[in-house]
Amino acid sequence: MRSPIRVAVTGAAGQLAYNLVFRVASGEVFGPDQPIQLHMLEIPPAMNALKGVGMELEDCAYPLLLGMTLTDQPEQAFDGVSWALLVGSKPRSKGMERGDLLKENGKIFVAQGKALERGAKDIRILVVGNPANTNCLIAMSNARSIPRERFGAMMRLDQNRMMAQLAGKAGKPVSAVSNAAIWGNHSATQFPDFFHAKIGGLPATDVITDKAWLEGNFIGTVQKRGAAIIEARGLSSAASAANAAIDHVKSMRAKTAGGDWFSAGVISDGNPYGIAKGLICSFPLTSDGQNWKIVPGIAHDGFAQAKIAASVKELEEERDAVKEMIPA
Amino acid sequence: MRSPIRVAVTGAAGQLAYNLVFRVASGEVFGPDQPIQLHMLEIPPAMNALKGVGMELEDCAYPLLLGMTLTDQPEQAFDGVSWALLVGSKPRSKGMERGDLLKENGKIFVAQGKALERGAKDIRILVVGNPANTNCLIAMSNARSIPRERFGAMMRLDQNRMMAQLAGKAGKPVSAVSNAAIWGNHSATQFPDFFHAKIGGLPATDVITDKAWLEGNFIGTVQKRGAAIIEARGLSSAASAANAAIDHVKSMRAKTAGGDWFSAGVISDGNPYGIAKGLICSFPLTSDGQNWKIVPGIAHDGFAQAKIAASVKELEEERDAVKEMIPA
Repeated sequence: MRSPIRVAVTGAAGQLAYNLVFRVASGEVFGPDQPIQLHMLEIPPAMNALKGVGMELEDCAYPLLLGMTLTDQPEQAFDGVSWALLVGSKPRSKGMERGDLLKENGKIFVAQGKALERGAKDIRILVVGNPANTNCLIAMSNARSIPRERFGAMMRLDQNRMMAQLAGKAGKPVSAVSNAAIWGNHSATQFPDFFHAKIGGLPATDVITDKAWLEGNFIGTVQKRGAAIIEARGLSSAASAANAAIDHVKSMRAKTAGGDWFSAGVISDGNPYGIAKGLICSFPLTSDGQNWKIVPGIAHDGFAQAKIAASVKELEEERDAVKEMIPA
Repeated sequence: MRSPIRVAVTGAAGQLAYNLVFRVASGEVFGPDQPIQLHMLEIPPAMNALKGVGMELEDCAYPLLLGMTLTDQPEQAFDGVSWALLVGSKPRSKGMERGDLLKENGKIFVAQGKALERGAKDIRILVVGNPANTNCLIAMSNARSIPRERFGAMMRLDQNRMMAQLAGKAGKPVSAVSNAAIWGNHSATQFPDFFHAKIGGLPATDVITDKAWLEGNFIGTVQKRGAAIIEARGLSSAASAANAAIDHVKSMRAKTAGGDWFSAGVISDGNPYGIAKGLICSFPLTSDGQNWKIVPGIAHDGFAQAKIAASVKELEEERDAVKEMIPA
């Protein structure tokens, strides 16, 4: 048995966390020999529901779950944690403009950034709550002592959706799909790069020769999948989003298989693709188990360049809309 | 990689299944080298929601999930499956008597028993939907060609709750608790046998000397935990129940650790504890990975005997209330 680690989850009484914390406590995420202290953060009105989640976690008799902290104080939630999974955010309410949504959520992530800075030592952060990239940028910018590379925004649900769509169209098992990357923002402008994806080791564009589908229906389906789920279930994606958070953490903690890559929103330093410095943008990444690296040397044609540019522009606009929350 | 197996889940668009099917598809239940075809059954009004669950399962890009069948036809759901997890049941509605609940659910399990008989070959069945023991009895009785030992009713949530309560009171990690058994019915009459449970290898009654707590508060807490969760969450236990279903399947499929046991509702043949033949009653069990065996040689004092007798009496009453659904 390893020494226990502390893992924080915010929005911990919400539906997404309800599909996440049990899988974290089971050992699926951090391994079967890694005891865990689970720190769960909620807003005061949700503390009773959170108590119920805590009771259910007890009722699982998980051998690896050594203890729980249920709190509405971010400092307490992040104290000494190795991973913070920032799930909680304000959903867009009726009549709310995108700018308002950015600002409402921005306040949460300013506070959480400051709390992370006070409480955390050797930490990694995953932002799941939307708008994830800009929330991540705000939290990162308010926690300057934490290396910026430790922050990530979740793009894995998009990547997994991309893989499923390619596999379905090709009539292959999803395990045959590799090198799936999302570029840009976790939003309807994202670019799922089918040009460099592989199916059974071959270029996806060799296996799927229906170019109109790839450039049209495929991209649209991946971009708008969240709305299609809501249409069918009457509720937004929770289990698949929780699963993507798990995949993100596992990919960051493992050495990436040779030649493959995965997607996450990480800090851009302008290299090697000329994407504006300081944005949290999705790239194809590899990990050595500790640190990620952007995969170099991917050449985009005009179609891909335009898609990526549009998504990066949106990220810049989001950043500008919350600039007062980003200390210089 | 092994040959794929088929796994059926009923009530597959419900909240409990929403916490179960993703964990099944991930490989957590049947192992990391066991490909799965998932058969999901729902009632017609829930088929659109089920479609959404299917879309989310696709969006997880699970390498082990080879395919899905979404259906409202039990025969199709159970065709060729190795495990059927019967989660769906009718909840008790306002003003409904217990007898009415038994009969309403009985109809479902008569139909599913007949469908199991037609579709299944080498199958194991777990009944989760309440009243689980009697639903299991009805399904089993309507599927006579399937060996009766293949049917189980879920008691594992009660067992896990029992372990958590004992650990909490003793101030020990839950992993220190072993030999936790529930006797009787999955209801408020169940008897969590603290006399034979162990904490750190010692009798629980040596570690927890507060006998009044064990005989009173402890039993009451385990029996009424479901209501306490509803009180806190505003919703019934779903994630912890799904987790217990996973534990049940894993315990049945693995060789039980030497000296330990687990709980499930299984067919009584009257031995070795004189419990009425033909009931689905919870006992302490061991498994060799294929077949279970009731742990013999447990001596109960008068207190325990009375508790078990009361729960068995309830099982007999439930059986009698649905006797027209149980072919001789």
